[in-house]
Amino acid sequence: MAETSSTLHRITLTPAPGGVTAPQGFTSAAVHSGIKVKTGALDLTVIAAGQSVPAAGLFTTNLAQAAPVLVSKRHLERTGGNARAIVINSGCANACTGAQGMADAELMATEVAAALGCQAEDVLVASTGVIGVNLKMDRLVPGIRTVSAALARGNGSETARAIMTTDPFPKEHAVKVETAAGTFLVGGTAKGSGMIEPNMATMIGLVTTDAVVPPALLHRALVESARDTFNAITVDGECSTNDTLFAMASGASGVVIDEENYSVLLEALLDVSRTLAVAIVRGGEGATKLIRVTVRDARSIDEARQVARTIANSPLVKTAVHGADPNWGRIVAAAGRSGVTFSMDRATVHVGGILLFENGLPHDDAAPQAAEHLKGTEVGIDVNLGTGGGIDATIWTCDLSAEYVRINGEYRT
Amino acid sequence: MAETSSTLHRITLTPAPGGVTAPQGFTSAAVHSGIKVKTGALDLTVIAAGQSVPAAGLFTTNLAQAAPVLVSKRHLERTGGNARAIVINSGCANACTGAQGMADAELMATEVAAALGCQAEDVLVASTGVIGVNLKMDRLVPGIRTVSAALARGNGSETARAIMTTDPFPKEHAVKVETAAGTFLVGGTAKGSGMIEPNMATMIGLVTTDAVVPPALLHRALVESARDTFNAITVDGECSTNDTLFAMASGASGVVIDEENYSVLLEALLDVSRTLAVAIVRGGEGATKLIRVTVRDARSIDEARQVARTIANSPLVKTAVHGADPNWGRIVAAAGRSGVTFSMDRATVHVGGILLFENGLPHDDAAPQAAEHLKGTEVGIDVNLGTGGGIDATIWTCDLSAEYVRINGEYRT
Repeated sequence: MAETSSTLHRITLTPAPGGVTAPQGFTSAAVHSGIKVKTGALDLTVIAAGQSVPAAGLFTTNLAQAAPVLVSKRHLERTGGNARAIVINSGCANACTGAQGMADAELMATEVAAALGCQAEDVLVASTGVIGVNLKMDRLVPGIRTVSAALARGNGSETARAIMTTDPFPKEHAVKVETAAGTFLVGGTAKGSGMIEPNMATMIGLVTTDAVVPPALLHRALVESARDTFNAITVDGECSTNDTLFAMASGASGVVIDEENYSVLLEALLDVSRTLAVAIVRGGEGATKLIRVTVRDARSIDEARQVARTIANSPLVKTAVHGADPNWGRIVAAAGRSGVTFSMDRATVHVGGILLFENGLPHDDAAPQAAEHLKGTEVGIDVNLGTGGGIDATIWTCDLSAEYVRINGEYRT
Repeated sequence: MAETSSTLHRITLTPAPGGVTAPQGFTSAAVHSGIKVKTGALDLTVIAAGQSVPAAGLFTTNLAQAAPVLVSKRHLERTGGNARAIVINSGCANACTGAQGMADAELMATEVAAALGCQAEDVLVASTGVIGVNLKMDRLVPGIRTVSAALARGNGSETARAIMTTDPFPKEHAVKVETAAGTFLVGGTAKGSGMIEPNMATMIGLVTTDAVVPPALLHRALVESARDTFNAITVDGECSTNDTLFAMASGASGVVIDEENYSVLLEALLDVSRTLAVAIVRGGEGATKLIRVTVRDARSIDEARQVARTIANSPLVKTAVHGADPNWGRIVAAAGRSGVTFSMDRATVHVGGILLFENGLPHDDAAPQAAEHLKGTEVGIDVNLGTGGGIDATIWTCDLSAEYVRINGEYRT
């Protein structure tokens, strides 16, 4: 068994083209249906498998959940974790839209189902954009019919563009996974924070694979891979009404994932998800720098994350990084108010690998070197809590700029 | 007893001049000692009573605590809640300064004690300004001797100015309290967020009274009054290494406060503290608007505060208010991610008294009216959770402007 396990772990991950439709068995298409009126940009996409396949979903933990979130949860429950297709529109979040919103989200699924010849519950739905506004179904329904008739492989990049709102660039990634048991693909796309009409940060992500994965295992892999990727990023600490992450497994490669070689799938999902998650942060509203905050030697993973998240969400840390100020004092103060107990005298702070705080005292002679590092577009902050627990966690975030204020302070209507 | 209580509650609060030295039995003085080199502004003050009097302190909950915080805590413990004087410098926080910092803070107390003829432990110490830098004791010690020799009533406004860092205006307030048992005064001063060299938000506050109040009761009154005033404000959710709030009771009025008429003192402390706390928010870094967030009909005070605080610290809510955008969606989303459970369908959102969200649906026809309200400098946000619990809480904050980013993003050295 050790030998088998060892063989299975000798895997190779190679970047592959195609994004969300890189894995066999998936097709997609995208159109401008008429929701993004001002720009005429792509605003509707359908991603489909050849038949109903294992699918999983993770959804916002906000009490205010948009209609498509409620509908997708219900559909996944009814099918026991299977889906034939996903329909996503951008430009309108269909959130806080009451009974009409629920009917509209259901109709989106029904229309896709009619076109593909499946049940409405086999279709998952996601929406992103301005909230409190009803979908223009007279535009969306003809759009859904058009995209459903145009499904093809090779449209992954159109799908990546169609789910964008104020994202400065589309996000897609895929890897070829070579294992002793055979080769399969994992692909994905995601969109990040911001809206055409500035509203609230909204993440939507989709990962696909042509491995054969039972629904329960796919759900577990999605939860575990999201923990250190999509759930380890923050732009402004907000959590939206629409956050959604889907996974679908077509099985077309014939490579079977089970308990024994589960780690192979997890590793590939982590690779694709991390690339997409970091790209969301890079494309954060007003972001000019990517910031990695790693907290080391905590007593538990929860405590490591709590400290890292408090630092990553600190407006004073984010503005200091924006201004290339090696202000270790703000990092120490954020860690100190995180609610996690540790000894300041045993903690250290490095910025760009340069030691700035140790034994409760600053190393201000090193500040100019750290300031040079902060002038770059990728910033690393490392805080060692010195608890002896040995647990690390990383959170990615971006700097806080005047542009963030401009984007989010403009009058909406 | 009911009659007595009723008589005692018929009190009159009248604004009075004099700030922190309005109550009898207090003197103060302030000088430029040479710490605020660039501006030459007042940077050192001593506030003293005629003898050791009951005193209380509340301190930052940050794990990183500045030397003056540690010294003041120790002194209050040793004296069982008594003090003769308080010495405060601005321009340097004496935080993250190790053993030297502790020695410097102790020396500040010792110098004041020598001048006044009391024990060092009878002197409380506070510092505010840049962290990780040692105090220039060669300037501070002569300064302490100068102010200690110049103590007088009527210097309250100099004291208010001497504790400022980047505060746009000094903050002081006093009230005359007329009760059946006699008349006494409560005065106070505070400084808010920001530093000459931008660093971290730091609050220092001091309230004085000439009522006769035992130490334990004074401490209780300080804790209870701070809860809904100094602890109910937020500029950016940060908590500093130096946050300190002191109270001193000279007893010079002869009006005795005991368990029975405790509420009279509490009411006056609340009045003075609320005025000072709201002034801190008004003078928040980059602030252009004061925002009152009131959460109503929660199940508990903790839950009401948690929802109010999440809304008040939301960058998306703060930028929306800055842009006069009646974006109820961001308020709903912040409440929804606060961790408190309630039904969105029973919740309502009012901005400036105008209903924008009810029964899970927006009232967008009212948005222009709410936008007009948001163009003012005082904004009211009311969220009713509809739990039936009937508990309310208010948090004050300010908007998030590009100026906040500029102030905190400028390179420090």
